[in-house]
Order: sequence, then C-alpha cells, then structure tokens
Amino acid sequence: MILRPGSVQGFPLPPPMRRALDLAAQAAAAGEVPVGAVVTLGEEIVAEARNAMRTSSDPTAHAEMEAIRAAAARLRTSRLDGCTLWVTLEPCAMCAAATAIARFKALRFAAEDAKGGGVVHGPRIFAQPTCHHRPDVLGGIGEEEAGELLRRFFAERRQGD
Amino acid sequence: MILRPGSVQGFPLPPPMRRALDLAAQAAAAGEVPVGAVVTLGEEIVAEARNAMRTSSDPTAHAEMEAIRAAAARLRTSRLDGCTLWVTLEPCAMCAAATAIARFKALRFAAEDAKGGGVVHGPRIFAQPTCHHRPDVLGGIGEEEAGELLRRFFAERRQGD
Repeated sequence: MILRPGSVQGFPLPPPMRRALDLAAQAAAAGEVPVGAVVTLGEEIVAEARNAMRTSSDPTAHAEMEAIRAAAARLRTSRLDGCTLWVTLEPCAMCAAATAIARFKALRFAAEDAKGGGVVHGPRIFAQPTCHHRPDVLGGIGEEEAGELLRRFFAERRQGD
Repeated sequence: MILRPGSVQGFPLPPPMRRALDLAAQAAAAGEVPVGAVVTLGEEIVAEARNAMRTSSDPTAHAEMEAIRAAAARLRTSRLDGCTLWVTLEPCAMCAAATAIARFKALRFAAEDAKGGGVVHGPRIFAQPTCHHRPDVLGGIGEEEAGELLRRFFAERRQGD
C-alpha cells in the first residue's frame, strides 16, 4: 500500500466521487453530517449511501458502513475483493477496519479528518501490524468540495444553537 | 478508563456473559466463528446477537455490530450511554470503534484476541488520543469457555479441509 494523501487538483473528478459528493449534500439536507460513499466494481457503481445515524437511530450507520453492507448484499458475498470504496471524508477507525475486513481492493477519499479519521490520522488502521488486508489508499480527491460541505453544515448548526 | 484484562476466575459468570457464550455456541453450530454479544441496560438484556457474516453475506455482521444495531433500534437512540456490551472475544478495531461511537458505558469481554483484537492488542482503539469516548473495559470474564469454543471450531474446520 502506498499512502498518497493530499490534493489531486487539476484532475477531473472521477464520477464515483462526484456521486459521493452529491450524496453528502443530500445527507446535509436531511440533517446528517454530510458524508457520502459509493462502492464500485470496475466502472460500475454497485452501492451507494450517505450518513444515516440520526435518521435511522443507528450509531453505526456511517455512509461507508451502509455502502459496504449494501454492496455485499447486492453482490451476495462478504468479500468485496475487486471493489473500490469512494467516500467524501477520511474513514473513521470503524469504517477503515470494515474496509479491511471486507477486503476492498482500493479506498479513495476526499477530505482528511484530523479529529476523527482512522486512515492517515489516529489509529492508522491499515498501518497496524495486525491489519490483515490493506487496500490501496488515495486521499484528496474532491477534498475542497467535501470540506466546504462539512464547514457549511457545522457553521449552520452553530448558528442554530 | 482502567484496562484490567486477564482472567477473573473464581467469580460466578455474570448472566449476560453466560448468555453471550451460549450465543457463541449457536454461532459455531451455524458454521460461524463462535462469538456472541449481549447489550445490557442495568440488569436487563436489551439486545443480543452472534456472528452472522457467512449467514447474511455481510462482512460487518460481527456479533458486536449486530448487537449494537439491535440495541439502538430497540432503545430508539444512537447513543447507548448507559449500556454495557458483553462479548465473548476481544472486539476488533471496527467493533471497538463502534463501541466508542455509540458511547457505551462499559465493555466486558471474555478471551483476548492477539491476532485480531483492537482493544488490548493492535490499534488499541480506546487508547488513541483521537478516541472521543472510552468505555470502562474489563476482559477475561469467561475466557476459558470462550477460548475453548474457538479452538474447537477451528480444529474441526481444519479436520474438514
């Protein structure tokens, strides 16, 4: 695994990340922290989700977990070997570990999360010697838009306090 | 949080761990790695589950995740502040992080998991500076029976190879 976090500006946004950003905006409109996730197999989107912790009263309903579960259900397998997970925010430890457990081929994320991230921050799940599977990781794809969605969401919430 | 892993032999097994061990045995009978989990609120069991990754083709369907989701659904909240999670094996990074996200008051586990654990091994999720919530953790409760279930399960699988 080569960790290549950081911005990849100047490149056109890959369609799965474009879709994940739209799902993040939908999450914000529903009062959820704006994070969206998409699972692809080859060029095809096989599953997608947005944060749903509030809507579904489920603390584990992060966009990534919902997308992983949906992809596994659709493909009828618990091993998503050939799949890529696209997500608008650096996954937390739970979601990063789920990506390893599901044996994702690759992980693509947008904004880094210094406070809650578990890939290039905090426990750095894939760098742990006990991590049994390490997807190829690339961050910074669409990070400006992803970060702006999050900043606007939390600014509006503070105004509402 | 005080980490007090290790055996607590000589004490009677708390009823929730007794139930979790029975669920682990049920998992083995269904061809799943034998791990069981129970969520309690006060003295009451509010949710229980066993590993279901194979049965449900869901890589995230660890006993703990299923029990956490069931407890949140039953209590209609994504914050399980007053709850305790009982599980027969040291949670992996995904499940340990989910316990923190759901703000569990306490975690009680049986056997340690040197290869896959994320609490007293590997990423030691609750010891990370970025971990926002740390349940009270106690391990070793019923570890002999939990370990024996796992050893027997994997020995039988090897015989079947």
